[in-house]
Amino acid sequence: MQPQKKLINSVDSCVDEAVCGLVRANGGLSLLKGHRVVLRSDLENLRGKVALLSGGGSGHEPAHGGYVGAGMLSAAVAGGVFASPPPASILAAILSLYNAGASGVLLIVKNYTGDRLNFGLAAEQARNHGVAVDMVIVAEDCAFDRPSKAGRRGLCGTVLIHKLAGALAQEGCSLDQIVSKVTEVLKGIGTLGVSLSPCSVPGCLPSFVLPPGDMELGLGIHGEPGIKRSKVGFADEVVKTMLDHMTNPDSQSHLPLKSGDRVVVCVNNLGALSCLEMAIVARAAVICLENRGVEVARVMSGSFMTSLEMTGVSLTLMKANQETLRLFDAKTSAPAWPNLSSVCVTGRSYITDPPATSTRPQEDTYTEGPLSPVMRQVLQMICSTLLDKQEELNSLDRAAGDGDCGNTHAQAAKVIQEWLQDHVIPGCPGQLLSVLARLVQEKMGGSSGALYSLFLTAAAGHVTETQSNAAAWASAVHAGTQAMRRYGGADPGDRTMLDALCPAVDELMKLTTSQPGGHMAILQAAVQKATLGAEETRNLTAKAGRASYIAAERITLPDPGAVAVAAILRAVVEVLEAQK
Amino acid sequence: MQPQKKLINSVDSCVDEAVCGLVRANGGLSLLKGHRVVLRSDLENLRGKVALLSGGGSGHEPAHGGYVGAGMLSAAVAGGVFASPPPASILAAILSLYNAGASGVLLIVKNYTGDRLNFGLAAEQARNHGVAVDMVIVAEDCAFDRPSKAGRRGLCGTVLIHKLAGALAQEGCSLDQIVSKVTEVLKGIGTLGVSLSPCSVPGCLPSFVLPPGDMELGLGIHGEPGIKRSKVGFADEVVKTMLDHMTNPDSQSHLPLKSGDRVVVCVNNLGALSCLEMAIVARAAVICLENRGVEVARVMSGSFMTSLEMTGVSLTLMKANQETLRLFDAKTSAPAWPNLSSVCVTGRSYITDPPATSTRPQEDTYTEGPLSPVMRQVLQMICSTLLDKQEELNSLDRAAGDGDCGNTHAQAAKVIQEWLQDHVIPGCPGQLLSVLARLVQEKMGGSSGALYSLFLTAAAGHVTETQSNAAAWASAVHAGTQAMRRYGGADPGDRTMLDALCPAVDELMKLTTSQPGGHMAILQAAVQKATLGAEETRNLTAKAGRASYIAAERITLPDPGAVAVAAILRAVVEVLEAQK
Repeated sequence: MQPQKKLINSVDSCVDEAVCGLVRANGGLSLLKGHRVVLRSDLENLRGKVALLSGGGSGHEPAHGGYVGAGMLSAAVAGGVFASPPPASILAAILSLYNAGASGVLLIVKNYTGDRLNFGLAAEQARNHGVAVDMVIVAEDCAFDRPSKAGRRGLCGTVLIHKLAGALAQEGCSLDQIVSKVTEVLKGIGTLGVSLSPCSVPGCLPSFVLPPGDMELGLGIHGEPGIKRSKVGFADEVVKTMLDHMTNPDSQSHLPLKSGDRVVVCVNNLGALSCLEMAIVARAAVICLENRGVEVARVMSGSFMTSLEMTGVSLTLMKANQETLRLFDAKTSAPAWPNLSSVCVTGRSYITDPPATSTRPQEDTYTEGPLSPVMRQVLQMICSTLLDKQEELNSLDRAAGDGDCGNTHAQAAKVIQEWLQDHVIPGCPGQLLSVLARLVQEKMGGSSGALYSLFLTAAAGHVTETQSNAAAWASAVHAGTQAMRRYGGADPGDRTMLDALCPAVDELMKLTTSQPGGHMAILQAAVQKATLGAEETRNLTAKAGRASYIAAERITLPDPGAVAVAAILRAVVEVLEAQK
Repeated sequence: MQPQKKLINSVDSCVDEAVCGLVRANGGLSLLKGHRVVLRSDLENLRGKVALLSGGGSGHEPAHGGYVGAGMLSAAVAGGVFASPPPASILAAILSLYNAGASGVLLIVKNYTGDRLNFGLAAEQARNHGVAVDMVIVAEDCAFDRPSKAGRRGLCGTVLIHKLAGALAQEGCSLDQIVSKVTEVLKGIGTLGVSLSPCSVPGCLPSFVLPPGDMELGLGIHGEPGIKRSKVGFADEVVKTMLDHMTNPDSQSHLPLKSGDRVVVCVNNLGALSCLEMAIVARAAVICLENRGVEVARVMSGSFMTSLEMTGVSLTLMKANQETLRLFDAKTSAPAWPNLSSVCVTGRSYITDPPATSTRPQEDTYTEGPLSPVMRQVLQMICSTLLDKQEELNSLDRAAGDGDCGNTHAQAAKVIQEWLQDHVIPGCPGQLLSVLARLVQEKMGGSSGALYSLFLTAAAGHVTETQSNAAAWASAVHAGTQAMRRYGGADPGDRTMLDALCPAVDELMKLTTSQPGGHMAILQAAVQKATLGAEETRNLTAKAGRASYIAAERITLPDPGAVAVAAILRAVVEVLEAQK
């Protein structure tokens, strides 16, 4: 078994380069020379205020460097992947903040022995340098009913502490005040994770083995074992299991949560869960909490405390009063903090009624007009023609497509025939075209349905009850064709229905200037041009539509779409000729 | 082969639930009843302004619903996974915006035939309803040297168009003005992707097969084929290949880019690339562009236009003038827009010098004092004792740990012996303790190194040149022990070095009140208590440290750390006795 290939330059350089990448990409960040320390680039703004420092092993990006900015951390120290940072770098960070004029430095540390010791050591050294230092340990993991002596692990809840402490520091609170406030808030924070995959440290094998289709509940952000393995369940059930476990009073690590409580929810991508799944989990969490009578004040969803490329998600709940929410909502320039609304999630109306303007023509109110009988005859002729040609069109399509062109057109014909049986034909041609547009859009399907519907919709506006002479019809057909070209992206010569339609439309446009006596000749010429255009598609290479995926030399038959268009046009003109 | 298990409830419901999750989580969003349409919940603010609508298939989250908000989109329509949304929903969205009083509606559409046709159809229908509608097609893929008739694909650059058009609409620009400006900007946008894995539509097999260790360049956001497969390369080389391809003048799809140009860079996670790798790619992109003389104005890095769980990244470049940057920097409430700095990436200083306060004691300036000789003797005795006990400690450790406890202590002893050879012993005991703290921190390693260093660092502040009587030493030892407990998280009874140290410190604290004549008796009692404490650890269950992972009944020997502490204390007292 080989370690998974990653998009890095080397195992040795990956952390330094990632820290550098973060700093280079964000104008508000700076790199402390000789250390993996990310600093606010505006250190001068720390003067007289408490500075906040966090950090820990790498592999949890954007934690913690991404949370450096006004209103959050003043600096972050990165260790190797999943390894605690060296005390010398932590001390260098503390002293940089102190030298910038900070009144004190608060260390925010996740509860892992290595981090506690290294940050603790740096803190003691800093004290010997005269710096006022304090430390808050975040230990909010809800996985274990009976946590070991090492205590609960520090997970994504750390990010919420960054935010609240950052807002307090920005407001000018003292070190003691901040420690006291966040210590109180920490009692109301809990986190639980679930994963469908392990992760792997660069250059190493995966942290554990999890068979496909299985998931592990309660695992740590370094791939440490969780509490239970099972088959991947339904998202709603998995979320309910997680929330139940997190709040189970029988567990020593539970978060006490009762109906009426108000919470902030953080849905944290552990690395590789799709954003689609993340949103489904967020929905499940909100609904599940609301079903328990809990008020969801805010939801943040995204990658906040990852485990490299672990396919999983963690849920963090933070009990929140008005003051907590004020701090949570406070402005920050930290690049990894999301763009959140400060509107309460629970209790707000989030459904908008659809537009009162009906999107469907008022077909019941149509009245017949002088053109109604001939339009009915034209439609009947078109439908019978398409049904007659069903097999011919399918056969042509089999050479270059999926062989259903005849079926698609026959489907449209049948739908129109059914509609004709129990509807009057509106006297306004534009109304009829709109009805036909809706029918083919809804029932014909595929690109053909969309293209015909586009043609009919764009044409509809050009022919009305009072404007329905030959010139108006010509303009309508022209507008329909233009819409097809514009949105479909094909041109004449691309071996599509346009090769029949466009030459015919060029001919039909003569109707706009000719005398009534010459109309029939123009119509007949248009039919001839369409037929010829369709026939000549056998010499064309497909450039659009499904046939464009087939090698040109394998297609020697005409394009079925073009043949269908020619047939429709011929059907129209045949009826008009018979009217004479 | 089975489709990959995902954290969803069902294939059929996943899109509706994801859209619902997005809306529920974000107070500024609303859901259009009966449609997969996300609207701004403050539609009233659109009155008299141009509204922006985008959308497309799902599976690209946060696109497009995450970009709905003041200053970006007014609404977004979602289709099924990788499927274009139905025209009826697009029309309903357009009419909702129109009814809210928008002066016009701009559709921003990625260049895929289905999207073009469906958005086009809805646009034509909306025009028949009297709505002023226009459409911008985004087609900025740089993959193919000779793109097919269908044109270049629309990729992550779409998000930049959302932003710029949104800022223009917010400022009150007309529909024509917005179309004309973004059309101009679009000429200077290019995108190219690379992936180390396929993705899979829920319920389906992966979109393609890619052997582990291979990558595909130029693939589409639905897993459509790219232009080249190869072994996964070094990140810097992959990025260089991408930028070279994107800007190669021989390609019809290239982005013309020359030295002196200014760009915005978007580093887009296609779904499952770790944030660590993302930052490495961002760094590579900035450096590569700067090496070509291109000025990088802004970098945004994150998940903006994903392909479900594809392990890949795309790079989008947008040529930017002052006006483009002003629009890019404008405020937006869209939840998926990142918290960006408006400081130019290229040209700014991003390195901070380390603190002038040295983190290393000024060892050369030390001068000897009255206590120097005895302190040297004590240290020599401690070192020889630890070297004598190396095998004994290793042997004790083999029962419960990794058997290197003696080696670790011997390592510290040797380092101290070396240091003694060419350094004077400072007269100030605190200075000596600081030196020792540094030596064990840097050279002893492991948790023991950190713990001893913590002890010494915390103790150092309590003994100075003028304050070095027995009481001061007792306070120092007490402070050191407290620091160990605080940061190490262990207590007496947990089978650690504290089981020897704490009883001894309790005894030593009597030095703070006793007369000088009684000091030696107290010291001897302290040694006895430490020895007894260490001996009794054989009856304790390990609750901290590595031994806590071993079943209690398997450990019947004393804890090596406690034995070492007792031995060190005995060595100290032996030297002091000999001084009498």
